[in-house]
Amino acid sequence: MNKSRVEAFIDAIIAIVLTVLILEIKVPDEPSLKMFFSEWRMAFSYLMTFILVMFSWYVQHGMFLAIKRVKLGGFIGVCVWLFVLSFLPVTTAFVGRYPSYWGAELVYLMVALLWLLSAQLMSFLIIRENRDVPEMKEFIRRQAGSVMLTSNIIWTVVATALIFVIPEIGMLTPIVTVIIQIISNRHQSRQLSA
Amino acid sequence: MNKSRVEAFIDAIIAIVLTVLILEIKVPDEPSLKMFFSEWRMAFSYLMTFILVMFSWYVQHGMFLAIKRVKLGGFIGVCVWLFVLSFLPVTTAFVGRYPSYWGAELVYLMVALLWLLSAQLMSFLIIRENRDVPEMKEFIRRQAGSVMLTSNIIWTVVATALIFVIPEIGMLTPIVTVIIQIISNRHQSRQLSA
Amino acid sequence: MNKSRVEAFIDAIIAIVLTVLILEIKVPDEPSLKMFFSEWRMAFSYLMTFILVMFSWYVQHGMFLAIKRVKLGGFIGVCVWLFVLSFLPVTTAFVGRYPSYWGAELVYLMVALLWLLSAQLMSFLIIRENRDVPEMKEFIRRQAGSVMLTSNIIWTVVATALIFVIPEIGMLTPIVTVIIQIISNRHQSRQLSA
Amino acid sequence: MNKSRVEAFIDAIIAIVLTVLILEIKVPDEPSLKMFFSEWRMAFSYLMTFILVMFSWYVQHGMFLAIKRVKLGGFIGVCVWLFVLSFLPVTTAFVGRYPSYWGAELVYLMVALLWLLSAQLMSFLIIRENRDVPEMKEFIRRQAGSVMLTSNIIWTVVATALIFVIPEIGMLTPIVTVIIQIISNRHQSRQLSA
Repeated sequence: MNKSRVEAFIDAIIAIVLTVLILEIKVPDEPSLKMFFSEWRMAFSYLMTFILVMFSWYVQHGMFLAIKRVKLGGFIGVCVWLFVLSFLPVTTAFVGRYPSYWGAELVYLMVALLWLLSAQLMSFLIIRENRDVPEMKEFIRRQAGSVMLTSNIIWTVVATALIFVIPEIGMLTPIVTVIIQIISNRHQSRQLSA
Repeated sequence: MNKSRVEAFIDAIIAIVLTVLILEIKVPDEPSLKMFFSEWRMAFSYLMTFILVMFSWYVQHGMFLAIKRVKLGGFIGVCVWLFVLSFLPVTTAFVGRYPSYWGAELVYLMVALLWLLSAQLMSFLIIRENRDVPEMKEFIRRQAGSVMLTSNIIWTVVATALIFVIPEIGMLTPIVTVIIQIISNRHQSRQLSA
Repeated sequence: MNKSRVEAFIDAIIAIVLTVLILEIKVPDEPSLKMFFSEWRMAFSYLMTFILVMFSWYVQHGMFLAIKRVKLGGFIGVCVWLFVLSFLPVTTAFVGRYPSYWGAELVYLMVALLWLLSAQLMSFLIIRENRDVPEMKEFIRRQAGSVMLTSNIIWTVVATALIFVIPEIGMLTPIVTVIIQIISNRHQSRQLSA
Repeated sequence: MNKSRVEAFIDAIIAIVLTVLILEIKVPDEPSLKMFFSEWRMAFSYLMTFILVMFSWYVQHGMFLAIKRVKLGGFIGVCVWLFVLSFLPVTTAFVGRYPSYWGAELVYLMVALLWLLSAQLMSFLIIRENRDVPEMKEFIRRQAGSVMLTSNIIWTVVATALIFVIPEIGMLTPIVTVIIQIISNRHQSRQLSA
């Protein structure tokens, strides 16, 4: 397949999903700053998902930079990943509207985990098609996929228990994901240099 | 015409149509998981159309990779194809909201067939402008257009009869289309190697 | 400026405007084919604007293919053109909802003319920056700008009078514009070969 | 990072934000020109934000043309800038609906300033990563960042005081920003040639 065309297609979909997210923040029906700023919960959940999506874009961008080709298998991986992505606006709006409802937080947690898993599936499928690319080995090591995946699953289990006490904790998943990635990358670099 | 610009324009429109599809899944007016998941029918119809569009994107991508140029005729084919495509969100929402209403399923079936026909028209117009490209012959043979088209028309006729008994069957069209394509490609390969 | 980046930016905006157009066609509140197809007027006005936008995309695409550069002046022309373009969805929805109201048809006619004028302004500004490009002269002659512009202004005047008798005539403007372009191109070719 | 991919991603997001802006202009519920044109305030606020976004696109485009690379720091700058940008549709709709409410104008002023600050942050981060590019020095000097920033902050302070008397003044910020940029560029050119 035409790699740069697949990239551009991914970017267009991600750009639209990001922008659809903001559509949930509505103008109040009265000229009132109080009502306008009462949407801050929605804005916060938007910020969280924005971080998650941009982080994911950055990671996937690095992978596409390293690979040489995308075949049917990789494209199916991309489709699954984009399909899960397209549920982010609705779960973000759900959690933004009812931040203290554990059900909304649970859905948010689950879709975030599902997206991570689909990203791993996509990586797996695309890397398999690029085994001969020399930069690939280095890339896989740096990604520290398994460390990150395990940490994220642990976080999801812990957070799932916690949201029944403090529901709002579910929304922090994107920040936790970014922190996990940074720590596991550091851990990896230390091991590699040891 | 500038082939890569036409490609990028197609991709932008398809990306937006795909994302518009998801806008129909609404956040419930109450903090209730039951109400949230009552939208699963909409999500299912979205998944179906997602498969149809991605499959179509893949096939068209292969064609654009092989061709050398797009002229006015081919561009008109692209326009017709995109015009029919842009009706997918509304028919998907219709079938997702009333999955057991035969009328919605019928409209879904008809627009899916219309889209297939418009894709064939586009292929025909673009291939005609690229007759001198050597990869074209091989591409046409592999596509097995007539086998697939006949099979799809048969499916539409059968499904149209069946939706009066089991309406939900209409929604399965995308899966059937993908299966038909895979089988006809296999059939073609066997014939070519025989 | 980076010509291909300006092109991609234009395409993204046009793609979104095209898709926003279709959002006006709503799923009925009842499972009823009659109500679904009662939206045909909206679908027709959508088709008309779709033709206008695609036609305009094609003409502008030809110009961008021929030119070598875009400077600030040309970019301002592009901005004005895109600004007028972005009013097409609302005027299309207005005329689609009230096709027999002369006011809606008048607004549609005026925005269509305004868009044509802004396209002429854009062409003028961009061509001025590319005077040294040899293909430019040939391109200008083939475009037959003044013949087309005059014809379109005459159409607008005539249609403005007619919509008080048969309002629906305003919606036909896109088809008339395309026909005018085809005829003036032919006229031009004949004059050039004479 | 892949510079042209980052550019295309930025452009997709900006294109969507621009188009989302226009969605706020609604078709009236009655066939009435009076009601249609009563949306002129919304259209005016849309025009203002359109100018601000296009101006910003132009400036950022110039920077991306000059630079050689984008790294993680610059990408974070881009993310912050795009995040602030994505709030423009809602503040524009707020100010368009209640143009004589000082609260809406204040929010509009603040988000516009925040966007300018985030653009400065992005420039700073990206320029730092491109210190070795020879065109960079010339670019920075021409931009006259500090003169422009100071002028804009002064404008925000003055306008914040004025909106309690004439609220509508807040909406003029985009025009003021453009004028400040033009004047500071001229001032800079004169100093450089002195």
